[in-house]
Amino acid sequence: MKQTFLALMLSSLCFGQIEKDQLMLMPWPKEIKINSGKLSLNKSFTVNISGPKSERLNHAATKFLRRLDGRTGTFFTNGFAFTNNAAPNAIVQIKIKGFAGLDLQQDESYQLNITSNQISLTAHTDVGAIYGLETLLQSLQHDANGFFFPTISIQDQPRFKWRGLMIDASRHFEPVEVIKRNLDAMAALKMNVFHWHLVDDQGWRIEMKTLKQLHENASDGQYYTQDQIKDVVNYAVNLGIMIVPEIDVPGHGSAILTAFPEIGSTPGEKYSIERNAGVFDPTLDPTNPKTYKILKQIFDEVCPLFPGKYFHIGGDENAGKEWDANPKIQQFKKEHHLETNHYLQTYFTMKLVPMLKKHNKVLMGWEEIMTKDMSKEAIIHSWRGVNEGLKPGESMVNAAKNGYQVVLSNGYYLDLVLPLETYYNTDPLHKNWSLTPEEQKKILGGEATMWGELVSPLTIDSRIWPRTAAIAERLWSDASVNDLQDMRRRLTPVTNRLEELGITHLRNKSVILRNISNYQDTQALEQLSNICEPLKNYTRNKGGVEYQMYSPLTLFADACTPDAKDALPFTIAVQKYLSNKNDMAAKTILLEYLNQWVKMNAVMEQQKVNAPLIGQVLPLSKAVSVLSGQLILKLQGDAAYNATIAQQALEVCQSKDFADVELAVAVPLQQIMNL
Amino acid sequence: MKQTFLALMLSSLCFGQIEKDQLMLMPWPKEIKINSGKLSLNKSFTVNISGPKSERLNHAATKFLRRLDGRTGTFFTNGFAFTNNAAPNAIVQIKIKGFAGLDLQQDESYQLNITSNQISLTAHTDVGAIYGLETLLQSLQHDANGFFFPTISIQDQPRFKWRGLMIDASRHFEPVEVIKRNLDAMAALKMNVFHWHLVDDQGWRIEMKTLKQLHENASDGQYYTQDQIKDVVNYAVNLGIMIVPEIDVPGHGSAILTAFPEIGSTPGEKYSIERNAGVFDPTLDPTNPKTYKILKQIFDEVCPLFPGKYFHIGGDENAGKEWDANPKIQQFKKEHHLETNHYLQTYFTMKLVPMLKKHNKVLMGWEEIMTKDMSKEAIIHSWRGVNEGLKPGESMVNAAKNGYQVVLSNGYYLDLVLPLETYYNTDPLHKNWSLTPEEQKKILGGEATMWGELVSPLTIDSRIWPRTAAIAERLWSDASVNDLQDMRRRLTPVTNRLEELGITHLRNKSVILRNISNYQDTQALEQLSNICEPLKNYTRNKGGVEYQMYSPLTLFADACTPDAKDALPFTIAVQKYLSNKNDMAAKTILLEYLNQWVKMNAVMEQQKVNAPLIGQVLPLSKAVSVLSGQLILKLQGDAAYNATIAQQALEVCQSKDFADVELAVAVPLQQIMNL
Repeated sequence: MKQTFLALMLSSLCFGQIEKDQLMLMPWPKEIKINSGKLSLNKSFTVNISGPKSERLNHAATKFLRRLDGRTGTFFTNGFAFTNNAAPNAIVQIKIKGFAGLDLQQDESYQLNITSNQISLTAHTDVGAIYGLETLLQSLQHDANGFFFPTISIQDQPRFKWRGLMIDASRHFEPVEVIKRNLDAMAALKMNVFHWHLVDDQGWRIEMKTLKQLHENASDGQYYTQDQIKDVVNYAVNLGIMIVPEIDVPGHGSAILTAFPEIGSTPGEKYSIERNAGVFDPTLDPTNPKTYKILKQIFDEVCPLFPGKYFHIGGDENAGKEWDANPKIQQFKKEHHLETNHYLQTYFTMKLVPMLKKHNKVLMGWEEIMTKDMSKEAIIHSWRGVNEGLKPGESMVNAAKNGYQVVLSNGYYLDLVLPLETYYNTDPLHKNWSLTPEEQKKILGGEATMWGELVSPLTIDSRIWPRTAAIAERLWSDASVNDLQDMRRRLTPVTNRLEELGITHLRNKSVILRNISNYQDTQALEQLSNICEPLKNYTRNKGGVEYQMYSPLTLFADACTPDAKDALPFTIAVQKYLSNKNDMAAKTILLEYLNQWVKMNAVMEQQKVNAPLIGQVLPLSKAVSVLSGQLILKLQGDAAYNATIAQQALEVCQSKDFADVELAVAVPLQQIMNL
Repeated sequence: MKQTFLALMLSSLCFGQIEKDQLMLMPWPKEIKINSGKLSLNKSFTVNISGPKSERLNHAATKFLRRLDGRTGTFFTNGFAFTNNAAPNAIVQIKIKGFAGLDLQQDESYQLNITSNQISLTAHTDVGAIYGLETLLQSLQHDANGFFFPTISIQDQPRFKWRGLMIDASRHFEPVEVIKRNLDAMAALKMNVFHWHLVDDQGWRIEMKTLKQLHENASDGQYYTQDQIKDVVNYAVNLGIMIVPEIDVPGHGSAILTAFPEIGSTPGEKYSIERNAGVFDPTLDPTNPKTYKILKQIFDEVCPLFPGKYFHIGGDENAGKEWDANPKIQQFKKEHHLETNHYLQTYFTMKLVPMLKKHNKVLMGWEEIMTKDMSKEAIIHSWRGVNEGLKPGESMVNAAKNGYQVVLSNGYYLDLVLPLETYYNTDPLHKNWSLTPEEQKKILGGEATMWGELVSPLTIDSRIWPRTAAIAERLWSDASVNDLQDMRRRLTPVTNRLEELGITHLRNKSVILRNISNYQDTQALEQLSNICEPLKNYTRNKGGVEYQMYSPLTLFADACTPDAKDALPFTIAVQKYLSNKNDMAAKTILLEYLNQWVKMNAVMEQQKVNAPLIGQVLPLSKAVSVLSGQLILKLQGDAAYNATIAQQALEVCQSKDFADVELAVAVPLQQIMNL
């Protein structure tokens, strides 16, 4: 047995063949073959591009080289890719046949073949080749002596056409650089749709040339200039990403109505930008001709900024309160035989279809737009689920069965800060849903949604990443790629390498902790943050009024992230120990953590004198410390263990009452206590 | 004695009067009076602005509130400042009389008066008030219970009119967000001139509408669109910062000549973008009418982008090699009685004066433009010094004596990565220079220069900050503010709070170290980096050919910074111990450091297996470790101390041969060895 293992090891070493579980690819490709051998990286590494000239592919190849030399420290002799087949003997040969357009019909496939002396990357389109470069970069391996590419062959293409990320820039404004770095990260994960939520109750974020009131009165000075929007659009096109802008109407209308109160549904109302979070009443008046005049003007100005085929008009969460209260609107409903507010909204939405069609845009809206009179050309964006009293995926299935093309976001709400697996396990084509092949084709894909109530430029990356990489895999890879443990293994290097693209999820955590500690040592705070998670399921900011949109997001909860770093290893160690009390390795891990948590609180108590903000976390820190101390006694069979003290501390740990976080190790701690 | 001290303590506590050395202001204000009492910060903190309406002051007040709530975690009831005197009872009352323009004549003074229940900030101009808000933010204090403002009165105004920072975006392109965050940091330090070095041998960085060849052929696709430039200009205007653009001619011409080889001084030469660092030959032909035709077109397009009064035309480091080699140019010199290449260059430069004047711009150039025929209206930028065979300040003094207005940069070259004190001690009006009052008036101020050969967006902030804050103080505060130790004390919180403005000097160090360690624990690498400094005085990248402009700047030297963090405390401890062997506190500190450095290497040796890049630092790390081990033995009087081993290790430590860094503690280590 031992000898066989040794022989395997040797063969693997001699021929340099790596194992599948050494590959860190994400999303996992459709087909992969691992051969023996490797191609070592050195300064003579060169890239050649042939086929029709694609500026964005040339650009991607240069960026590929910068990222490759950045992470390996290699001083390449040729710092740029050769284009127009200028170096037919270069190590990397990229060949394309044509270009991808900005719609969902593009061929995104690529073939990557690495031998011990050459790398061949071929694709039908430039975007396919750009994706292939990401896979090549992910395939980089190293040993103690240096870096190399393993000899592998990959054939790859996506499962779904629509692999999106939405960022809400209305609740909190996200400057251009935030958008750009997230576009870079999306492209690295082979995502292709950026949905830009630009208008909501809390702000209008588009500079207008004709209706200046919108950005001047309803943005607090925080908006994208049209030049900036064009810049972002170009940036996205370069990455093969289509942008879908959203102007949310007729509900979520506070910002628009701040600029144009006369088209609101409550006559004489003085609307203002909303500062809280929630669902609010201000709604456009669908019976007022001026409403459509203004919307037409808006679309005429905004549509040309975006070259993509789709325009999102929101349409969600209109409870119709203002409509019910307005006799004129009630009268209009009767006259037009519109029985419900939903029908009235459809009347409204259908008026927008030709305004968009004029600019060759297809209307897309949240699922509430789907009533019986809604055009079948519209794209339905499915978002409601368990929290709204529906089964997961129910509205998506309904849309597909009703003949609509549909994109799934229910299950991908990043702002719920749920555990990673809930997102990964959400499949737009779940096997339990009985859909005909024709209905299945209606399901375009999915979209992760980053609503902006509780994120700022400092923290937004840590809410989007790395979890969106898991969603990207769900949308790109085969349904059979669903091993959670293997996904976690591959997610770690993806998480790290996102730093290379400017994603700030790791570095900004330190910034927040330094501020809280007033620039004292942050180790203790970090240890606590590694077992705490922001409150889930909208329980932070209860009622939407605790935080205003200008309230600080520099707090302990903002430094914490979903899937707290130390929670899983601790939980696993506890499980192992519980199933086998003689597992000394597991017990050692347990005790190391418990000892760390005992000490952590003492440090913070001391630091508090010079850092008022630490005070907010001390009750929790103290409880964790006390409980950990007790559990050490218990594990050691020490008679000094006091069950009452432990129980009191546990209750604090379970309470979720402090610093807007929950303790992610409360369950395993309780399990030790119950031993 | 003890009682007096106690009484003082009590009086200080009772009346809440803080001491001068608790104030963390930088630049230190002109006059300050400390009173007893304090104004506590709570959620009802409000700001009111009166006087003529200034959008940028309103904007600054909002940013002030966001930074204040961000660092204190306060949930303000009023998230925005009241404008137009809408809240005459607000706690902070800001009053201005008018607006500052974009020239050097603006009144930048302000008065800040904090009492226990109100804060009054008055200024002649909006920019003065914006500076006052920075001072107010810097004056924030805290105790264990919370945050407060001390009751102080400040009258403040700058010593010099020109307090500048130059960023070279040609050698390495620095995207808009890099420029913006540095503008924010400048404003926080009351700096008012941003000099944007946009063109050099290594790239043309301005989008051109008429001469597209420039950005299309000579930028590698890395340039600012005109929209982006306008965006940055607006951003700067909002902060009271004037932008001085630079197009460097006639030397440093490789990029321009890549686009227009026909105006080069070597007929038929095929020019290309320079990839190395250094002084190169490509120079515009001053005898060719087309040269002036193109330059006129350039200025006609670029000047209107910048509202400021000054335009920098470079003019430096033209060795005239191409001119000497071209008989036609030599003939021209004779015909025009231009004895030297310098006179020929002046002939050239004088042709540019009216091109700029047409756009109401004053010509500014590096000191080489100063020959006897140069217009006295030109601004001289003094840069040469000891490295160029001149005395410090010599060329600046000459310029002033010759009747030129002059800005000093010699002594402020950030890319020399010299110790902090060399920058702080450089005074444009040094008392040793015998200048008449009239001549002194010619000295406008100074400018920190960040040349771009060895900086990238990832690292540039760590080269500029925090040291530029010390330069800012030199240029703002009275000459008598020159206590190095006190400056260091105040620089620490400034360093930290720069994070709040997005400056990445702290966070990106971790990014680089994580990459080097391949995402293993970075503590050991960080410990080494805290005693290493990048090679100084241009000894990194010897001959300018080791690094090409596309070479990686993600190496250990890039994580290290000038003024290595642990070097000073260790050096001080050694000095204390050397002067008194019974100073056990000092000895304890020494031993703690030495023990840390012994352990550090073992960790890195182990990590190297999984991180090839660590290999580059191991020889140094090992030498520090071995030497530290020996010095511990020596300090403990242990007979195992081996002087030969220590000496060998010391030589490696002194060698500056590894990883492009020098060990910043080599001297104190040697001092212990020589005990």
